[in-house]
Amino acid sequence: MAEQVKALVLGAGAIGSFYGAILHRAGVAVSVVLRSEYDAVKADGFRISSPLGDLSFRPAAVYRSTEEVRESPDYLIVALKVVEGIDRVASMRPAVGPNTTIVLIENGIDIEPEIVEAFPNNAVVSALAFVAVSRVGPGVVEHKAYGQLMLGDFPKGASPATHRFAELLEAGGVRGVVSENVVTERWRKAVWNTPFNPTSVLAGGADTKIMLGSPTSEALIRAMMEEVCAVAAAAGHALPDDVIESNIVNTKKMPAYHNSMALDFLNGRPMEVEPILGNVVRAAEKHGVAVPHLSTAYALMRMLIANQQQNKA
Amino acid sequence: MAEQVKALVLGAGAIGSFYGAILHRAGVAVSVVLRSEYDAVKADGFRISSPLGDLSFRPAAVYRSTEEVRESPDYLIVALKVVEGIDRVASMRPAVGPNTTIVLIENGIDIEPEIVEAFPNNAVVSALAFVAVSRVGPGVVEHKAYGQLMLGDFPKGASPATHRFAELLEAGGVRGVVSENVVTERWRKAVWNTPFNPTSVLAGGADTKIMLGSPTSEALIRAMMEEVCAVAAAAGHALPDDVIESNIVNTKKMPAYHNSMALDFLNGRPMEVEPILGNVVRAAEKHGVAVPHLSTAYALMRMLIANQQQNKA
Repeated sequence: MAEQVKALVLGAGAIGSFYGAILHRAGVAVSVVLRSEYDAVKADGFRISSPLGDLSFRPAAVYRSTEEVRESPDYLIVALKVVEGIDRVASMRPAVGPNTTIVLIENGIDIEPEIVEAFPNNAVVSALAFVAVSRVGPGVVEHKAYGQLMLGDFPKGASPATHRFAELLEAGGVRGVVSENVVTERWRKAVWNTPFNPTSVLAGGADTKIMLGSPTSEALIRAMMEEVCAVAAAAGHALPDDVIESNIVNTKKMPAYHNSMALDFLNGRPMEVEPILGNVVRAAEKHGVAVPHLSTAYALMRMLIANQQQNKA
Repeated sequence: MAEQVKALVLGAGAIGSFYGAILHRAGVAVSVVLRSEYDAVKADGFRISSPLGDLSFRPAAVYRSTEEVRESPDYLIVALKVVEGIDRVASMRPAVGPNTTIVLIENGIDIEPEIVEAFPNNAVVSALAFVAVSRVGPGVVEHKAYGQLMLGDFPKGASPATHRFAELLEAGGVRGVVSENVVTERWRKAVWNTPFNPTSVLAGGADTKIMLGSPTSEALIRAMMEEVCAVAAAAGHALPDDVIESNIVNTKKMPAYHNSMALDFLNGRPMEVEPILGNVVRAAEKHGVAVPHLSTAYALMRMLIANQQQNKA
């Protein structure tokens, strides 16, 4: 009998604990590292309601820090927010062994190079979650819909480690879709995320209905989407012609809602401005693409954060 | 002996009551129309401290509405905010007689055409206040510094009515500077106002130090200023080459402060988005000038206001 696969989830918020639960269903020994919810999860494990059934589980081990980890896992699932003040590499390092595959389930563009450079001898899987989950209390998560993870190697290809991870997801009950061009998929997701997330914050926490609620506002969102597509194309990831139209049409069909950066803003939490917006603006500079709408939003977001910090001080 | 000149101040906030006091010092019979501070001013007049001395005065008459005005004034001083929900023409109409000169002391670009169209047979003076005044209580105003009013006819020239009004200001103790091209002066003021005001609001109420606090933020302010200058030039009001540099340098020399739109935002008051920003964006469209940074800020401001209204509802 094969030895049990071991996974360690670093950053077990809603997304991390959901995929931890999926791997647990697939027979993986899932341990977790978490800080603020340590006591609750240590005592009661995760409580996860889901259309897939009850996904509640007790981790094989619960750590406050990767420093406590004695045996490096087969898979290190990194579901940390990419924000200032979180040193992802330092958090990961004590848990990464020679045979550890690193799986990054994180938002944004160009979040991989720092990790690939820090761990040049480890397989790094870049993954995008398409899932509606939210944390409703310490260790308590509500899975509402979807669940697919799209994954591939950075900058391209799909190694055996990536395929094995996809198989585990499928065994656990969600789609694990391997892409040979996961970076293109990140750009495709950025067409929505990069315009809507900062726009919502700058408009004071506006929902999707307000952001598409007038010709002026829709024109801004479309202009920002065009800039994202232009940068993506310049970076070698041309997207289909209808990607903007379909994003607008689909968003209009959905009920008004607040995106993740809007919720972070409204709740006073750090925002993923750099992976979602700053890295796109820097990619534009690198490739010589003019992005005046995006760079306006980026400069405004930096000022907003500077103002938040000044008000706190 | 000549009959006493009669002035009526409509919108007697800090600016309106300050210039009312100056005209009172010049021997003008100054009446006022005000709503929320009616009782305080009716009882005690205006209390105005100033480096010029005590400018406190009792108006010749205090009205709640121009409907109550029996005799039309020689000068109708309009110091209303140019915001949605205030119908300036309707407020003015009952007080405008055949010999009334209308003096607009208001912020922004293209605030005159609506008034000129509504009162085609009256002289309209367009005026820009360079004054540091603030309201500190009902009918209580603190004049801190400056006081100059720059004035001229719209769209250009300087009629006898304009010159007479400037003489009254000088008699009252401040500079009254007549410009044959007051619209050019409005554009010159817009080089500062149009970038800094909405930027401050979108950054959550940021002060001038934050808005010039990093290369990214200063680059945005400069890009917006360049767009204002390009629109001004296309509209026939080319500004000197050093106007941007001098605005940046002077602002850096001043202590950090919050501009008028930032204060309106932080205090939940209506903001002058259309005269300061929207009319510039529309002038750009009319003249075929690309203003991506300004139009991003404008779309964001419209969304912010839509979001405020939704949160209030």
